[in-house]
Amino acid sequence: MSAEGGLSQEEAFARIRLLRSPNVGPVTYGHLMARFGSGMAALAALPDIAGRKGRTYTAAPERRIHDEIAALRKAGARYLFHDSPDYPRLLAESEGAPPILTYRGDIALASRPCVAMVGARNASAAAIRLSREIAHDLAGAGWAVVSGLARGIDGAAHHGALAGGATIGVIASGIDISYPPEHAALQEEIAVKGLLLAEQPPGTEPLARHFPTRNRIISGLAAGTLVVEAAPRSGSLITARLAGEMGREVMAIPGSPVDPRSHGCNQLIRDGAILVQGAADVIELLSGFTGDPRSSFREVALDWGASELAEEAGDPADVGALLTTAPVGVDELIRQSGVSAASVQLALLELELAGQLVRHAGGRVSIG
Amino acid sequence: MSAEGGLSQEEAFARIRLLRSPNVGPVTYGHLMARFGSGMAALAALPDIAGRKGRTYTAAPERRIHDEIAALRKAGARYLFHDSPDYPRLLAESEGAPPILTYRGDIALASRPCVAMVGARNASAAAIRLSREIAHDLAGAGWAVVSGLARGIDGAAHHGALAGGATIGVIASGIDISYPPEHAALQEEIAVKGLLLAEQPPGTEPLARHFPTRNRIISGLAAGTLVVEAAPRSGSLITARLAGEMGREVMAIPGSPVDPRSHGCNQLIRDGAILVQGAADVIELLSGFTGDPRSSFREVALDWGASELAEEAGDPADVGALLTTAPVGVDELIRQSGVSAASVQLALLELELAGQLVRHAGGRVSIG
Repeated sequence: MSAEGGLSQEEAFARIRLLRSPNVGPVTYGHLMARFGSGMAALAALPDIAGRKGRTYTAAPERRIHDEIAALRKAGARYLFHDSPDYPRLLAESEGAPPILTYRGDIALASRPCVAMVGARNASAAAIRLSREIAHDLAGAGWAVVSGLARGIDGAAHHGALAGGATIGVIASGIDISYPPEHAALQEEIAVKGLLLAEQPPGTEPLARHFPTRNRIISGLAAGTLVVEAAPRSGSLITARLAGEMGREVMAIPGSPVDPRSHGCNQLIRDGAILVQGAADVIELLSGFTGDPRSSFREVALDWGASELAEEAGDPADVGALLTTAPVGVDELIRQSGVSAASVQLALLELELAGQLVRHAGGRVSIG
Repeated sequence: MSAEGGLSQEEAFARIRLLRSPNVGPVTYGHLMARFGSGMAALAALPDIAGRKGRTYTAAPERRIHDEIAALRKAGARYLFHDSPDYPRLLAESEGAPPILTYRGDIALASRPCVAMVGARNASAAAIRLSREIAHDLAGAGWAVVSGLARGIDGAAHHGALAGGATIGVIASGIDISYPPEHAALQEEIAVKGLLLAEQPPGTEPLARHFPTRNRIISGLAAGTLVVEAAPRSGSLITARLAGEMGREVMAIPGSPVDPRSHGCNQLIRDGAILVQGAADVIELLSGFTGDPRSSFREVALDWGASELAEEAGDPADVGALLTTAPVGVDELIRQSGVSAASVQLALLELELAGQLVRHAGGRVSIG
């Protein structure tokens, strides 16, 4: 493979292999990168760290990574690493941001100010038309419209933004899988004229468990998320909630209570989302957005350079004894253990690589 | 006429005549009542006070008051004075509350907790149906639904509340005039099964200038005002704004931006009104309403018993020289004049009776 984003082939390969290895999620990946300074160094240290808990640990097979890279090339896609200048700034500031993305299309779009648009698959004809118009106007005003390629509102937002100039599609499958089937042509059009992003490796079928993390990327990319028409307890509302937790604007299009498809948006507005009626409202609201996450999640955002693991850690603390199945904050663990933050983080890393740690929202951890 | 609300015939007559006399509005009436203790005493003093500014002043002719009372009787209506135990408490607490109302129907309804419902005359069929349902449910839950008998939302609210148990219609004309004509039967039904209120004397045709004060009564009666469907810059939004200024809840039913009839309500929600989707939301919101006006207008509410004019005033101050056409607060006038509050109020009363004073919202005054 060629160098990606200024990285050597070896370093890119090591990073991909590190992230695909057992029990390595975005947070652990970040801790390992911070502690060891490179993917190659982290990968080399991995068996030793993971082995301290007495289990045999095997990193992802090299063969699998070679196959993944071949599949990616075949799909006309590329890798985007967290420290690339092309990596979207707002996404990098969000909790659990993917350390490696795959993409097709115009990566420069990821540097534009972004608005997410989401909503119901079974949306009304009026809402579909409105979504298309709003997306068109937003794209025309220089915004990239981010959505998830679902039927209904998502598709309308992509179509409108493509006509207006710019859209980003984020899919829950690998970059080489089309989903839903009826949007295969749209997905291809986005990959050619816009930007298509996927966190999962090529060949990954869209599984239910991939959708929440996909939704997190959609809200993480955008200064604000607009919900157009949504049922209560729908995925669109989860994406909106994630946006709110990240300190981004949450916006909703109201609708008559007579139409149940409006109830999700109306509830969102009651809960504090900003009522917007069109692209002008969205632009007015977001034009002052500075991109500083204002939520409590800021402290756990992936600021790897300043990670506590970058300190020289002594022996890992025995924090396993302090953990239960109830999630607890890492700060609390550090206080209770009486050892350095770096030692606690290293101990958590060992537990995680041994498959014994679960990471929760807000940076809390528990026994798995 | 028979005694009304425990008053003697003479006192009731004097009060009506006082209020119908030139340049006597609700505020002046309140000041006069506070200073002189009764309508009879105030009426007796009126020519003297009004004459101090060198003009001839004539109170309303007795003949006109006799005619008014006869017309009221003929319409089957009665007077309601501000100090009657039947006078609605929340209305009494609102700025510029009518010192005398006329009514037909069940005055006990005015003591129920009230919700105002207002909206567009050209409302959609869906909004009309929704208004009827909400009003029906509110009335069934023990609330009186207040509206203005206009076409569209108002009529639907009255119809729904009549079916559910209780409605109050507030009209801009005299109690014996039906308006609009197509609601003559509804108005009669409200007068028989509900409560019909009018501030203007019998025989008064509905003039444009009566509608704002009528709207103030609607919002003043109610713990909250619900706007169902309204165009921007419509009378319904003015009623809602008045409710907000009185410290009452302002609620709105949202609608799709695709329908221009929703834009007024959506704007209201953006400006801080509470989004509600049905009667349950309204009841939940208002059940905690204590009736204490929370706005800056509280200080100028008609708490006549504690009026500064009830103090013994010395000579009226020469505040005329301090006034310009720019509205100024009475507090400011008192400070600038260096005399007692009672003297300033008396001076303002003289100016008002001479037709030289204009009273503005928030208790401010200017030269007319």
